[in-house]
Amino acid sequence: MVVGGGGIGLEIAVALKALGVEVTVTKRTPPVLPRTLDPDVGKPVEEHLNELGIKTMFGKSFDSISGNNNGGKVEAVVIGGEEIKTDLVVMAAGVRADFALASAAGIKSSSRGIITNNRLETSIEDIYAIGDCIETFQLINSEPCVMQLATSAYQQGIIAGINAVGGSAEYPGALNTFVSKIGKLEVAATGFNTPTAEEFGYEVIGTKVTAPNKPEYMPDHKEITVKIITDKKTGRILGGQAVGEEGAAWRVNLISLAIRTGMDIHSLNQTELAYSPPVSEAYDVLTMATEFAKRRLKLSK
Amino acid sequence: MVVGGGGIGLEIAVALKALGVEVTVTKRTPPVLPRTLDPDVGKPVEEHLNELGIKTMFGKSFDSISGNNNGGKVEAVVIGGEEIKTDLVVMAAGVRADFALASAAGIKSSSRGIITNNRLETSIEDIYAIGDCIETFQLINSEPCVMQLATSAYQQGIIAGINAVGGSAEYPGALNTFVSKIGKLEVAATGFNTPTAEEFGYEVIGTKVTAPNKPEYMPDHKEITVKIITDKKTGRILGGQAVGEEGAAWRVNLISLAIRTGMDIHSLNQTELAYSPPVSEAYDVLTMATEFAKRRLKLSK
Repeated sequence: MVVGGGGIGLEIAVALKALGVEVTVTKRTPPVLPRTLDPDVGKPVEEHLNELGIKTMFGKSFDSISGNNNGGKVEAVVIGGEEIKTDLVVMAAGVRADFALASAAGIKSSSRGIITNNRLETSIEDIYAIGDCIETFQLINSEPCVMQLATSAYQQGIIAGINAVGGSAEYPGALNTFVSKIGKLEVAATGFNTPTAEEFGYEVIGTKVTAPNKPEYMPDHKEITVKIITDKKTGRILGGQAVGEEGAAWRVNLISLAIRTGMDIHSLNQTELAYSPPVSEAYDVLTMATEFAKRRLKLSK
Repeated sequence: MVVGGGGIGLEIAVALKALGVEVTVTKRTPPVLPRTLDPDVGKPVEEHLNELGIKTMFGKSFDSISGNNNGGKVEAVVIGGEEIKTDLVVMAAGVRADFALASAAGIKSSSRGIITNNRLETSIEDIYAIGDCIETFQLINSEPCVMQLATSAYQQGIIAGINAVGGSAEYPGALNTFVSKIGKLEVAATGFNTPTAEEFGYEVIGTKVTAPNKPEYMPDHKEITVKIITDKKTGRILGGQAVGEEGAAWRVNLISLAIRTGMDIHSLNQTELAYSPPVSEAYDVLTMATEFAKRRLKLSK
């Protein structure tokens, strides 16, 4: 029984299944990766888990675990009122940083993490903090956030390192650029998904396209889905998601770079992408998604 | 005997070899893809051709073809003064557009192609031209150029189409974003290579890194080489090249987008790339190449 439908929960579920273990994934809210994917992009990921023989029980409360407390052996869980026998429970229901040491040292923090400025210096001069334990800020709108990914920790490490040895560097903010391999699927995203963008007050256009990653006459072509989230008011790109057997991460990396430059959907649409049939399509699924966003943006004016 | 070491020549050489034909590729200038790759990036491509059993005779003049003119059957070629028996000659030594029809219609052209403005309208109102037959311009420095790739033709088609039906769109210029699959290698490039940048008067920093595309403990990791060309004066990115079994095109696509936005090496270095061991490295070879460019740029100031 895996509790949690984020990257860690889904990856461990697939790994256990590959070892021949009967696996159920349970989570309170229905979509997988809810802070990363839109529900319609997450749906095929859930379907792929089921194809692999992994049972999903989404939208149900996790009530309790029972077992032999002496031997530390779990025997059953109660999910949405239903008792289910199990031999192993993997808790992958979220990450909360332990920054008690920093607090004890008098470093200022919020309820979620150590507070730093954009040089990644804490409230105490010459003490820097990076990674899962800090409250950082969104690149797109500068709102405070917690971003517990290696990608942001890595970049923060460089910035803090430069500043700690007397240089001067500013962290541009985090984009939540993410990829996970769930079974055969690359699942990737960057920036805001629709629910997050709407929480921040944006009215968005979401355009999703599924198409082969190279011409259909190439026997090794694979389907890929790309969704782009565009700000209806300005045309600015706010986020992107991709799911497929190949190339999801790099399409999302391209969207990540576009967001970083504050690029609008028209400029991304005109990007020159390398084309050759054994590798790619002349009219890539990413370009299609930007094309549809352009049209919907025009109609909405 | 394949004459020409561009994408078409090399692709046909590999295809003929796969059919069991003994193949030699010959070209006048030593490096492969000289307008696309720097010689040091092209070298492993030539070595891969040799590994596949394709003979290369570079840096020699192509003197003559002899054979039976009646039956149209070739018998030998003379290369650099040496006669070599052959059954088939593939001429892939360059492309020149035939725009005689346009000239006959009174449309203005240069020696290389039909002249258009940035709306892709010719010298005659309401007549548009796109693709291999036009002289277009470089995105980076607006210099006139001929860019005979599907990538630019495709984008020009959209722009010309919009303008032809009464809309208003401007072509941003061509970047020469290119990919070819040569045997097992993806060979990709965008913008200026070092010789082209130097011809245009730039003083450049070229930084090249070869590293695995994902952590070495992943059994399916592959080596990839990325080279980035940076303007020494401004730090602006002028070009990028990549060679490897996987992911060369997408790294070059990212550089293409960076060039399009006029991005400097510091901004590209801070791009958030999606990381997960089955898919990618936390410190991608592309980020390494930008890091080295940053350092060399700093030292050169």
